[in-house]
Amino acid sequence: MPSSNNAEPITKARRQSSPDRQDLLARYRQVRRQTEQLCLPLATEDYCIQTMSDVSPPKWHIAHVSWFFETFLLIPFQPDYRPFHPRFDYLFNSYYVTHGQPFPRPQRGLLSRPTVAEVYQYRVCVDTAMVQLINSLAEPRWDDFAARLTLGLHHEQQHQELLLTDIKHILAYNPLRPRYHENRPDAEGSCVQAAALNWSEYVGGVRSIGHASAGFCFDNETPRHQVYVQDYALACRLVNNGEYLEFMDAGGYERPEYWLSDGWNSVRQQNWQAPLYWEKLDGHWWLMTLAGMRPVAEQEPVCHVSFFEADAYARWSGKRLPSEAEWELAATLQPIAGNFMDSGSLHPLPAAATSIAPTQLFGDAWEWTQSPYAPYPGYRPLAGSLGEYNGKFMCSQMVLRGGSCATPASHVRPSYRNFFYPGDRWQFSGIRLADDR
Amino acid sequence: MPSSNNAEPITKARRQSSPDRQDLLARYRQVRRQTEQLCLPLATEDYCIQTMSDVSPPKWHIAHVSWFFETFLLIPFQPDYRPFHPRFDYLFNSYYVTHGQPFPRPQRGLLSRPTVAEVYQYRVCVDTAMVQLINSLAEPRWDDFAARLTLGLHHEQQHQELLLTDIKHILAYNPLRPRYHENRPDAEGSCVQAAALNWSEYVGGVRSIGHASAGFCFDNETPRHQVYVQDYALACRLVNNGEYLEFMDAGGYERPEYWLSDGWNSVRQQNWQAPLYWEKLDGHWWLMTLAGMRPVAEQEPVCHVSFFEADAYARWSGKRLPSEAEWELAATLQPIAGNFMDSGSLHPLPAAATSIAPTQLFGDAWEWTQSPYAPYPGYRPLAGSLGEYNGKFMCSQMVLRGGSCATPASHVRPSYRNFFYPGDRWQFSGIRLADDR
Amino acid sequence: MPSSNNAEPITKARRQSSPDRQDLLARYRQVRRQTEQLCLPLATEDYCIQTMSDVSPPKWHIAHVSWFFETFLLIPFQPDYRPFHPRFDYLFNSYYVTHGQPFPRPQRGLLSRPTVAEVYQYRVCVDTAMVQLINSLAEPRWDDFAARLTLGLHHEQQHQELLLTDIKHILAYNPLRPRYHENRPDAEGSCVQAAALNWSEYVGGVRSIGHASAGFCFDNETPRHQVYVQDYALACRLVNNGEYLEFMDAGGYERPEYWLSDGWNSVRQQNWQAPLYWEKLDGHWWLMTLAGMRPVAEQEPVCHVSFFEADAYARWSGKRLPSEAEWELAATLQPIAGNFMDSGSLHPLPAAATSIAPTQLFGDAWEWTQSPYAPYPGYRPLAGSLGEYNGKFMCSQMVLRGGSCATPASHVRPSYRNFFYPGDRWQFSGIRLADDR
Amino acid sequence: MPSSNNAEPITKARRQSSPDRQDLLARYRQVRRQTEQLCLPLATEDYCIQTMSDVSPPKWHIAHVSWFFETFLLIPFQPDYRPFHPRFDYLFNSYYVTHGQPFPRPQRGLLSRPTVAEVYQYRVCVDTAMVQLINSLAEPRWDDFAARLTLGLHHEQQHQELLLTDIKHILAYNPLRPRYHENRPDAEGSCVQAAALNWSEYVGGVRSIGHASAGFCFDNETPRHQVYVQDYALACRLVNNGEYLEFMDAGGYERPEYWLSDGWNSVRQQNWQAPLYWEKLDGHWWLMTLAGMRPVAEQEPVCHVSFFEADAYARWSGKRLPSEAEWELAATLQPIAGNFMDSGSLHPLPAAATSIAPTQLFGDAWEWTQSPYAPYPGYRPLAGSLGEYNGKFMCSQMVLRGGSCATPASHVRPSYRNFFYPGDRWQFSGIRLADDR
Repeated sequence: MPSSNNAEPITKARRQSSPDRQDLLARYRQVRRQTEQLCLPLATEDYCIQTMSDVSPPKWHIAHVSWFFETFLLIPFQPDYRPFHPRFDYLFNSYYVTHGQPFPRPQRGLLSRPTVAEVYQYRVCVDTAMVQLINSLAEPRWDDFAARLTLGLHHEQQHQELLLTDIKHILAYNPLRPRYHENRPDAEGSCVQAAALNWSEYVGGVRSIGHASAGFCFDNETPRHQVYVQDYALACRLVNNGEYLEFMDAGGYERPEYWLSDGWNSVRQQNWQAPLYWEKLDGHWWLMTLAGMRPVAEQEPVCHVSFFEADAYARWSGKRLPSEAEWELAATLQPIAGNFMDSGSLHPLPAAATSIAPTQLFGDAWEWTQSPYAPYPGYRPLAGSLGEYNGKFMCSQMVLRGGSCATPASHVRPSYRNFFYPGDRWQFSGIRLADDR
Repeated sequence: MPSSNNAEPITKARRQSSPDRQDLLARYRQVRRQTEQLCLPLATEDYCIQTMSDVSPPKWHIAHVSWFFETFLLIPFQPDYRPFHPRFDYLFNSYYVTHGQPFPRPQRGLLSRPTVAEVYQYRVCVDTAMVQLINSLAEPRWDDFAARLTLGLHHEQQHQELLLTDIKHILAYNPLRPRYHENRPDAEGSCVQAAALNWSEYVGGVRSIGHASAGFCFDNETPRHQVYVQDYALACRLVNNGEYLEFMDAGGYERPEYWLSDGWNSVRQQNWQAPLYWEKLDGHWWLMTLAGMRPVAEQEPVCHVSFFEADAYARWSGKRLPSEAEWELAATLQPIAGNFMDSGSLHPLPAAATSIAPTQLFGDAWEWTQSPYAPYPGYRPLAGSLGEYNGKFMCSQMVLRGGSCATPASHVRPSYRNFFYPGDRWQFSGIRLADDR
Repeated sequence: MPSSNNAEPITKARRQSSPDRQDLLARYRQVRRQTEQLCLPLATEDYCIQTMSDVSPPKWHIAHVSWFFETFLLIPFQPDYRPFHPRFDYLFNSYYVTHGQPFPRPQRGLLSRPTVAEVYQYRVCVDTAMVQLINSLAEPRWDDFAARLTLGLHHEQQHQELLLTDIKHILAYNPLRPRYHENRPDAEGSCVQAAALNWSEYVGGVRSIGHASAGFCFDNETPRHQVYVQDYALACRLVNNGEYLEFMDAGGYERPEYWLSDGWNSVRQQNWQAPLYWEKLDGHWWLMTLAGMRPVAEQEPVCHVSFFEADAYARWSGKRLPSEAEWELAATLQPIAGNFMDSGSLHPLPAAATSIAPTQLFGDAWEWTQSPYAPYPGYRPLAGSLGEYNGKFMCSQMVLRGGSCATPASHVRPSYRNFFYPGDRWQFSGIRLADDR
Repeated sequence: MPSSNNAEPITKARRQSSPDRQDLLARYRQVRRQTEQLCLPLATEDYCIQTMSDVSPPKWHIAHVSWFFETFLLIPFQPDYRPFHPRFDYLFNSYYVTHGQPFPRPQRGLLSRPTVAEVYQYRVCVDTAMVQLINSLAEPRWDDFAARLTLGLHHEQQHQELLLTDIKHILAYNPLRPRYHENRPDAEGSCVQAAALNWSEYVGGVRSIGHASAGFCFDNETPRHQVYVQDYALACRLVNNGEYLEFMDAGGYERPEYWLSDGWNSVRQQNWQAPLYWEKLDGHWWLMTLAGMRPVAEQEPVCHVSFFEADAYARWSGKRLPSEAEWELAATLQPIAGNFMDSGSLHPLPAAATSIAPTQLFGDAWEWTQSPYAPYPGYRPLAGSLGEYNGKFMCSQMVLRGGSCATPASHVRPSYRNFFYPGDRWQFSGIRLADDR
């Protein structure tokens, strides 16, 4: 039973001037269709598997994003709406414990039913009701509704990226190493010239970070606030595989002096010897991509490294990772463009050969920062169960910035804060170096 | 790579006069078709799930039984046979470690590929090659081939029962409690009169047990040998749910004095309060069947109990479980008939109302004995990797006898020895009491 | 609070003609003093450690055997007896769950209090009260009391052996490899001539096993009953280290075909490469003894092997382990003499150079049999909480026979049944081969 | 074998003007004697126990602090020094993995040897050599030596606090609830008047934090640097038990909305229902102290709460925890005085009845801040193995400030940064509230 607080208005701070109904309807259709497109290459069997507890079966993602609209839009705003199935609220609630006890996450892969077809039926029913509601909702409730709907669409975009990272894990786990899609020529990257590692310099002082513009943002990007930043420099591109191989060749995974204590424990206990998805075959390093196995290309950004590996690499190289403030201040000066999900390569691409300004800030790979994920001064989460969206995770995780090759282009901003545990590796996460000046 | 010892002849002791080619071909087709029939009600998704490490995904069973024919028949006997897929030998070897390192059992449910369709293609290819080989094999090798083929068919019948027990676990685990098939009227059992608990008495002395007749048997049923048995009595039917409820009402699951020490630890650690698949809803006991949830029927045999529960029930009732010798000596006097898989109910049925001779010895539910699974005096396993079939499990398990409602009728014999760990509950396992005289 | 059933008379079947008070008092004093003697070499710190959950801190043993007398003798038979400490009944109950919930076994090493001195004070108080009670108990209750007291003394002798095996584990775990006592010349065994491996042959038929004589026995040795035994042969001595090294050199720990399935899992998961306490230093095998580290002597019986290792060795050698009936029938023909705790060497000694009759049946090392530990036909445990002494462990363990170099000489009988899990290695357990004839 | 880098000079940044030899010798003697004083109430058995892996046996602490002087002072600076025992470097290295592989931490409680007496002999030998070296070291090396020695003394003071927290855990774990010392009258606190919860207000802006004065500090307190702080307020005293009971009575441990996600998981998995060491007896809350069990006193500061509990309490109360900068800026304005180890109460005491300025900033209980433990901008760890002292732990832990009733008074500073994982509760850790202004 959805708790009553799902109908509370989202706090004013989070609301923007409401979008037009037809615009929002078009956007709803576009985002929903995008999710379905991503699943086209999947076999029914691929939808059901959970290869580790961080991964969810693709079927679960499909159902969960529909559950979000059903729970936070249809039920509170459509008085005569009848839930599609009485148990789906239990099965497809992810973590909103104030809403109800969710089905245990590590067991999502133990459910053969509902079938994939039934989950798509659920999706269709939710879509039908949503389209009707968008068209018919009385004006006085529109602003609240539109704010929530916008949140729901960004939520679904987050799950689009998770779908891709989880599918990659599912396919890579399989000894048959099946492909999700075919190689694209531009994803080969074999003949690219190495881009030199230039540095951009920034003057410190009291600066402002946090969401500033008029558009949507998550609550964790607010409030905009002042920070004191020292002079610093940022590398103009991501660390690439060739550079990372030097670290490996220098004994990076065998020498504890480069590692945080918890990181060194991970190296030993999980026997890390290379980034996730790397495999040594006949003396050469290969890696698994969504287009199957292929040799490691030296110019491509290193990807699927944990914070611990990013931090150890930085320490070995005599540099450090940027703080999230340093990153955001630099990114605000650049256009939001890069190798996103929309390009279709679904793999990080080599940096352009020469550059003085920082490149690859957006897309390619999420960039680990040295900033623990914490609330901004004066932060207030959303009201009701949606307040669990971000705030309750502000402990023991690290901030990543900039999006990846699996992030929808329209989903990212300079102020966007992603967060994962320091040992997580299955996201498209890479390394940008920073330094003091 | 299959090891060479797969081509060794099976020891003479195990071979019988060879069956006719056409008979064996017909039997091959019948058994293979039976497996496919059992899977007809499954959704593709049901094939992929492993709800605990004892359970295998149905897809895995389908592939594994084909792998058995490929590995132990096609490759050794058909010189130009080319395996269907180079990695299937790794994926679908169950436990023949002298043959090669198998894929880890607890991770069978983490493989979305090969798909169900591909596994059926594998099956078709193996069938085609097998039919050709049965028809064409040169006479001098026929006897060995026929002995192995017969073993392979009994092996597949074992997996037919495992398919049903694993499907039951998969469906029962799901909060939606989906059905495998529809209720059959004869499975309702609501209006049956309670059968009185009569006892059959047997005179002790030196007796012979073990396989005696001309037909097939597994190596663990041999050699036939003498044992000394004391006078004893056997209950004429299985313990039923009503009787088991009395044990529960008497605090059976709360009073340690009825339990073996390891059993009591299981009760506490796993919080056992009733047989597996029982659930208390609104104050009444229900149980999950392959036809869905329904109220516990008192006249039906209690089923899905562990050895620990069977033993505790027997101690509470002032009786004991039979030894396997006692059971076999009694069963040899009865016709092999009962409620088997072939009846289609797939659920234990109440005993006939009155009986002096023991009933339900065959079918309904496997009967836990008090006998640890151990080699008979002079026991020798099969040669080569097939020697791993039974012998290496002769430790820490208990013998069950008589088959169940999920066992193919043609698969059981009085000398048949099934074996599971004393805490296992997902098989159709029940209780027959014995007593000293 | 001790439950009332501790006062129930032990069943008649277990009682013998009662011993004389002064004899029993002398025996009480002797056994109690023996336990204290064994602890003389210990530092206070050695008393407190639990290096694995099978091991108990020596301090716990000292307290537990006193608790046994307090709980089963003083409280039921001495009306005005006041327990030494109200919480000791909780702390020092081992496994009598019908008596009360014991303190968790794996956490016995987490208790610094009571101190060793307090535990010895407890011991002294119990001894004082016991001596008084032995001298003063009214005649009508004497028989029951004497039967229980005799059980308590055998119980304490069992803990004498456990004290030694646990002390050995505690000292061997320590990287400093401290000694419990000094080497004794006769324990060196370096110059002994290898004894040939002769075989004694026995004719089969219906035989009787189980306790027969007038003296004390545990309930699990009864009732004496008939068994059918086939013709067999027993090796005339234990397998020695030199022979076991041949098995190791032949790849014993790398070749799954010699192992039971559960045994092979233990080899892999626990990385077994030699018996417990063996260590390779500079290319040579050494072993830890209660007299410290020393090179493996080839003529000494192999010791500290699990059932799995004993069984694998036997399979590799083309023989098998004896059944407990085979062992007992042979042992009944031999005098009860051997290298027991009383000799003080506390280490298995080489067999005498030549022998036709079986030697080493008693003492040196417990001999794993192929018999699962199960109740004899007609077995009934003692009444009350003491019924938990043996019966509830009759599952998943294997029988060992004959005692070891850590067993008090007066504690063993041909019918004595010891039992441990097939993977246990910290007892002084070795191998005697058997064969069919 | 100590690695050579132990002889590297500590970086200049960390060195102060060197103290006088006689002063340092006196300080060495005072600190070492203090450690021994703390152990006086211990029984030998108390020295050996490790009740969870965070806890070390007191014996280990005694040896480890001596190992620190031996490894980082005696061996590098005294050419003819011979280590006390060749294996102690392995046994008593805590976490300096660049120095050598330490003995596994969770198994420290499994070592009965060296005995307590041997560990004290080790201590005496190290002391003798240290005194000699302090008196005789050649002048050119004195500055480096003095800097390291000072570090060693602060290291030993840290272990003095850990000794007390570990002893408390060891004694509290024991069902007998033994006392470490007797109640002191001033520790009763029963008749104290409740202090009102006043607030001190602070104006924000660019401020400097980090170590500023001339004395010793750890590397993690440097460099002093600028931060931007918003206007804020600090509560004038710690949260007390009475206030925390209100949170508990309001369902604090049952309502997920107050908790971080990881915190709520801890509540559920570890069944938290009150602070560590609280116990409900006959309907009333008691708590374990180093002076034994006693009723919860409402005016005493709540203690032994995790960061998760502190954060949940703050959220429930509508406030928040302070950042470490906010805390330090306020603390710099107050004298370093409070209820430290030196007072002997070893328990937090109620705040003085009225106060406008913040009290209890020092002593009583460590105060959880909302700041993840991270490097200050420009932070550089010490050279060599001593660089592992602080830097490698800068991930996933939270900063605590101000010291506790178990901290030596001479050990604390306003810039002192302590750090523990957010779920840790066995330190004397409490709660001070902050708020925005």
